[in-house]
Amino acid sequence: MSGALDELIALMARLPGLGPRSARRAALALVQKRKVLLEPLAGAMAEVAASVRECLICGNVGTGEKCDICLDPKRDGRTICIVEDVADLWAMERAQVFKGRYHVLGGTLSALDGIGPEDLNLPRLAARVEQDGVEELILALGATVDGQTTAHYIADMLEGRGVRVTSLAQGVPVGGELDYLDDGTITAALNARRSV
Amino acid sequence: MSGALDELIALMARLPGLGPRSARRAALALVQKRKVLLEPLAGAMAEVAASVRECLICGNVGTGEKCDICLDPKRDGRTICIVEDVADLWAMERAQVFKGRYHVLGGTLSALDGIGPEDLNLPRLAARVEQDGVEELILALGATVDGQTTAHYIADMLEGRGVRVTSLAQGVPVGGELDYLDDGTITAALNARRSV
Repeated sequence: MSGALDELIALMARLPGLGPRSARRAALALVQKRKVLLEPLAGAMAEVAASVRECLICGNVGTGEKCDICLDPKRDGRTICIVEDVADLWAMERAQVFKGRYHVLGGTLSALDGIGPEDLNLPRLAARVEQDGVEELILALGATVDGQTTAHYIADMLEGRGVRVTSLAQGVPVGGELDYLDDGTITAALNARRSV
Repeated sequence: MSGALDELIALMARLPGLGPRSARRAALALVQKRKVLLEPLAGAMAEVAASVRECLICGNVGTGEKCDICLDPKRDGRTICIVEDVADLWAMERAQVFKGRYHVLGGTLSALDGIGPEDLNLPRLAARVEQDGVEELILALGATVDGQTTAHYIADMLEGRGVRVTSLAQGVPVGGELDYLDDGTITAALNARRSV
């Protein structure tokens, strides 16, 4: 096995979702599909490395100083959806239902992992609320302990600034069967019950 | 999401072991770890694309016309181990027990997938047996129907050429518990029982 290939495997193994064994298999597939996979992928990576950067406003990834969403005049800047990371932003975008802008925190508060408010993208959020006439902040954070801690922290931080802070509803997932749901979800769905 | 990133995700999703969702996650990790992961990986891929090629003798991957194993004078050229693909060659090498050379078939015969003898690296194998004074061919092919069909085909092909054709033993894996073994393995192990 050559040194270059060893290095490729070691780097591939550091990607989320690939371990040492699957990294070997992926590297081998790359070598065997040089023209259709390896060369295009090396090119795409070089291009992303050269062009993609973090949006100065919201923390999304894009090709300029501001991301496509922050630049889009059709998106409503008065509503900001707060997400943990870019993957969650993409998940929201896939639903094609939110027409406001985003703010990417870059994580959630976590006492266990030693992540405090100063590690998150919070100062820029406060500045946006002050300057941009934001009317509603939607907290789209995970229904985990860390996510909910972060949600409470942000709600506290922005209290008295005249901005409405809301959060995604909790309840039965669409297509979900009650039999397979955990007790916490059923409790949340019952507490948030609506008249039909 | 930018076009370059879209293309990167589409290409990553074609790697074995990654689907559309994990490709997105991996691409995001690349963007977020640009200096430590994305740029080195783009470089490693470009280098592998430029330097790694198939060995003209055995079909292994290496950086020259002949691979490291075929060039190594310490490896015994009289014993050749026949493997299905380079991943299997690497698995044999990890065991650090085989000191001969290899021959990579590039697949196994498969009536279902329409893979015939002409699709495999067989002519070069016959030439090697003729020219290089090969004394033993070890068939290290999977214990599947296709693997065993291929083994029988090769044994038939080389009959009368004065080369000994052997095959890896079948039996209980080291550390294996009988309770978890399938009937076929237990049958094979019983038939190949040895005196202690």
